[in-house]
Amino acid sequence: MAASQGLQDRFGRNAVFSLRVRLAGGEAVGGVASLAERIGAAVTNAALVDAEPDGKVVYDLTLLTTGDAQMEAIRKAVAAADGVEVLRVLDVAMESHRGGACEMRSRCQIKSNTDLRIVYTPGVARVCKAVQADPAKAREYTNIANKVAIVTNGTAVLGLGDIGALAGLPVMEGKSAIFWEFARISAEPILIDTHDAAEFIGVCEKLAVGFGAIQVEDVAAPACFAITRELDRRLNVPVMHDDQHGTATVVLAGLYSALKKTGRKITDVRCAISGAGAAGTAIADVLMGLGMPDVVLCDRVGAIHRGRRQRMNPEKLALSERTNKDNVAGTLADAMKGRELFIGVSEPDLVTQEMVRSMAADPIVFALANPVSEISLAEAYEAGAAVAADGRMMNNALAYPGMFRGALDAAAESITLEMLRATAQALADCVRGDDLMPEMMDPATHQAVAKATREAAGPGTPLCT
Amino acid sequence: MAASQGLQDRFGRNAVFSLRVRLAGGEAVGGVASLAERIGAAVTNAALVDAEPDGKVVYDLTLLTTGDAQMEAIRKAVAAADGVEVLRVLDVAMESHRGGACEMRSRCQIKSNTDLRIVYTPGVARVCKAVQADPAKAREYTNIANKVAIVTNGTAVLGLGDIGALAGLPVMEGKSAIFWEFARISAEPILIDTHDAAEFIGVCEKLAVGFGAIQVEDVAAPACFAITRELDRRLNVPVMHDDQHGTATVVLAGLYSALKKTGRKITDVRCAISGAGAAGTAIADVLMGLGMPDVVLCDRVGAIHRGRRQRMNPEKLALSERTNKDNVAGTLADAMKGRELFIGVSEPDLVTQEMVRSMAADPIVFALANPVSEISLAEAYEAGAAVAADGRMMNNALAYPGMFRGALDAAAESITLEMLRATAQALADCVRGDDLMPEMMDPATHQAVAKATREAAGPGTPLCT
Repeated sequence: MAASQGLQDRFGRNAVFSLRVRLAGGEAVGGVASLAERIGAAVTNAALVDAEPDGKVVYDLTLLTTGDAQMEAIRKAVAAADGVEVLRVLDVAMESHRGGACEMRSRCQIKSNTDLRIVYTPGVARVCKAVQADPAKAREYTNIANKVAIVTNGTAVLGLGDIGALAGLPVMEGKSAIFWEFARISAEPILIDTHDAAEFIGVCEKLAVGFGAIQVEDVAAPACFAITRELDRRLNVPVMHDDQHGTATVVLAGLYSALKKTGRKITDVRCAISGAGAAGTAIADVLMGLGMPDVVLCDRVGAIHRGRRQRMNPEKLALSERTNKDNVAGTLADAMKGRELFIGVSEPDLVTQEMVRSMAADPIVFALANPVSEISLAEAYEAGAAVAADGRMMNNALAYPGMFRGALDAAAESITLEMLRATAQALADCVRGDDLMPEMMDPATHQAVAKATREAAGPGTPLCT
Repeated sequence: MAASQGLQDRFGRNAVFSLRVRLAGGEAVGGVASLAERIGAAVTNAALVDAEPDGKVVYDLTLLTTGDAQMEAIRKAVAAADGVEVLRVLDVAMESHRGGACEMRSRCQIKSNTDLRIVYTPGVARVCKAVQADPAKAREYTNIANKVAIVTNGTAVLGLGDIGALAGLPVMEGKSAIFWEFARISAEPILIDTHDAAEFIGVCEKLAVGFGAIQVEDVAAPACFAITRELDRRLNVPVMHDDQHGTATVVLAGLYSALKKTGRKITDVRCAISGAGAAGTAIADVLMGLGMPDVVLCDRVGAIHRGRRQRMNPEKLALSERTNKDNVAGTLADAMKGRELFIGVSEPDLVTQEMVRSMAADPIVFALANPVSEISLAEAYEAGAAVAADGRMMNNALAYPGMFRGALDAAAESITLEMLRATAQALADCVRGDDLMPEMMDPATHQAVAKATREAAGPGTPLCT
């Protein structure tokens, strides 16, 4: 923890990418390490690969960098260094995704013709007939009760925008890997190559019969609202848009933690949100649904209020009706004044220390823009934040694997506000010591989420309004 | 081989389903074994589970049966047997499919927050940007180049007919398991819940961006022809309808073997086919495409010929134009007279020994209806067949795993007649000794297929005409 905090202090919010350089040469390691240091990278790992008879040693050095420019500088400097032979330079993130992050595998061995006749024809015909006679049997004799479709059209991928379905696939595969590693869920990336919401809904509807649940992912606002709402209405399996409801869940978990730390109740808190896309809208609805007296959302134009004309759409018009009780107009700075809670799901560096100082005493600052937040944690604390968090701490992967596990195990027909609330509370209850969020790598975190979601399943308040 | 031939002789063509009975009692095993024998089942395995201090032993007995009626008789008889305590009775095929035959798993461990930051955000953003800049990179940095969609609407599942997409899922999962076990291909079952061919095509088209190839599966004729043809035309990835082209490939492989055994060339052979659905039509087109001088197809009405009015459709009308050189009318029996080759892809027991005797000397009889063939091998041989085969010997799983492996590895844009021919020849070349078909369980079989398909990839004759 100390070490990673040290790295974070040194690299600020930008230490994100690693290079793995394989070097040969007696003095190679020390030379390249100091060279990397000069450029500003850090050696995070050195592993001996081979020692040749002539005394030459081969090492893999892993170098942490701040981004493309520094990676390029390292490549060049290492290649030009004296007495060092560069055998290869690997981009760790790229290499980790080589061949993809997930794959469909058999659950049964086929080692004999008898095995084959059980897995396939004629044995499988018994299973087909059983499902035909009673479709509920599909949950027992196929993978369906453990199977989530991760559907996207690639219109709002990470912070990258509309990069298209195919370029979004690595993210969907990453999510699938997370589903498997944290919750043993079989999650299939499904790319739907369309910008038309009705067509997207239509394709999902035809495919849904093969899945136990649907995770909508990285679909841009405002289309994501109609898509999620309509799928939730039409399908009898849980539908959740991670960018909306996954984010709202972890934010709510963090808020529960922060309320405890600051001795507040949710009814004591009024909130300003930067970002009125999928995440901001869902967070606002969840917070208001759970009793927060006022929430105001800001987009690039400023506060969304009744009477605003600029850059509105039907979704934002509806937002202006149900949020912003006092009908605050103006900039984000205006919206934050005197409020107890700021939530940023927008863009880097939009929030100044001055704006934090203008908030109520002991404010809570969640600056979640990725990879660079609206304000750094250090700046937020310096400006008087009682609790501050960024997107690294509030990772959706804390919530969705366990939520889907719980919803699948409960055979839930949808994910309700009550399930989301129970999940957030379970996450807050898992927090240890002075932390704000629970430990991602602890299986108990995901198990607690699954249990809470499962137990809260049943008729309840729809998430999509 | 001798043992399984013995079982086959004893159970005829019907030994298909196993029960696994767990019994307790000193004399239990002997008692139940003889009981099963009396009912007509066979004990294929006895495994000691436990021996208790009081001398009681617990065994799992696996009993091979001819079907539902015998299974039920065994359940009842075992339950009523003296001195035997039945602990449980499992249907082996059903149990093997419990939880499904395939699942999507992670290809990377996530054991630390660093791992997570590589698999998912921010590391994955590098991969997304690389794919956005050059879509071909998706083949390198996602699972796409190893990923096949198995698409179905469940309208022609095995011999079960239109049982719907969901009831067809166990078959798709079985195929996925086979893809993995024989060719390490990641194959996703995709159910498309529609009876409308245009809609089916539309959905596939929107999804295709996420896959390296498409296997159409168990879609009924005649819709399957338009679907496969149109997808092949619109998509730049290989599309193959297993019921058409997978079947045609193994039939051609068997034919190459049989031609060698009977000293014939393909140009010496005229063929009658029973069944003018997906398989029969594709087989006819492939055989004619490779030089067979005449093929006549028969459906329930009889020979498909020019001038026939009854139960025709546009696909059959077109068939009547390109097949049946001599415009033979009448029944299947009429069509078989004097021909060297019979291929049945239809229904049980349609062919009599008399009909085989009416064929040319030393005829080749492929009676492939599943699970019960048009005529038994014993009867066919008795009636003078030089070579006979049934659906167990000519299993599509010999062809499609390796074909897709080869097509994916060659980055082929479609599967051509030339690839199909090379695959069939490779299968025939793998045959050992007096066998007609190669060994399914030998990895070398699937490797040879993959190599042949890969090497034959490139511009060629479309399979869908």
